[in-house]
Amino acid sequence: MTEKAVQDYYPDDIAVCYGCGKLNDHGHQIKSYWEGEETVCRFQPKPYHTAFPGYVYGGLIASLIDCHATGTAASAKYREEGKSLGSGTLERFVTVSLHVDYEAPTPIDATLELRGRVKESKGRKMVIAVSLSAGGKVTARGEVVALQMPKDFLSKDK
Amino acid sequence: MTEKAVQDYYPDDIAVCYGCGKLNDHGHQIKSYWEGEETVCRFQPKPYHTAFPGYVYGGLIASLIDCHATGTAASAKYREEGKSLGSGTLERFVTVSLHVDYEAPTPIDATLELRGRVKESKGRKMVIAVSLSAGGKVTARGEVVALQMPKDFLSKDK
Repeated sequence: MTEKAVQDYYPDDIAVCYGCGKLNDHGHQIKSYWEGEETVCRFQPKPYHTAFPGYVYGGLIASLIDCHATGTAASAKYREEGKSLGSGTLERFVTVSLHVDYEAPTPIDATLELRGRVKESKGRKMVIAVSLSAGGKVTARGEVVALQMPKDFLSKDK
Repeated sequence: MTEKAVQDYYPDDIAVCYGCGKLNDHGHQIKSYWEGEETVCRFQPKPYHTAFPGYVYGGLIASLIDCHATGTAASAKYREEGKSLGSGTLERFVTVSLHVDYEAPTPIDATLELRGRVKESKGRKMVIAVSLSAGGKVTARGEVVALQMPKDFLSKDK
């Protein structure tokens, strides 16, 4: 795809997330796109992202679900406000809680596909549901409660 | 500490987990130890494990909680059976579900301390509660439902 991803609209000064920051050279740099009412992210695990030989590490699955969900939340909020992606930068959402159900082992040689949708939107809070599949089979499902980042979130004297 | 960690007792053929496998050169190689009725793991994030500048990536926190919890489960089960660590290899537990509540941003310059305890043990299932703190302040709490790995878990034709 040549279109810009959701994560490309995060402001540069906070685009350093290991999971989704375009400026983190060590990180996963996931890219999420809207397809209708869902967001989609495709990701190829590295050979060393193993849990057991041949299967994906659950921590990677949790990480992908987390970042795909916060990206979904940020861009869904933007759309709710009647704005189109590209007309400005996105306000980041932070994760309040993350829940993942691992339904089956995830093969490491497949491209993983994450699909996200808004389950609830209320004020600054969003609940995002995400499924993760490999080779067409859903192997994990997640739910993320995300909050639009408060202005004092990174204040050292909290 | 010079004692062997819980993860050092996993059989070599499955000690490749990105989070806790001693044979995964790319991974975190976390080490968990028993202190009384709790397990403890200390981990120093890399400078690039960022969520935002100065703060730890939530996916890393989820990953550490996951692997520390499954290590706690495997070794707690072993102890329940009256065996002492070192008298054999541990049977791995796999994660059925992972839940993390992020209570505050986690500073990246601190050594993280995870503390795990058995919340429930029933047959092959264990529920493990984990707290994660930085500089003495708890910033995240997790709960992992883990299952002693079924013999056919990695069967390709599931």
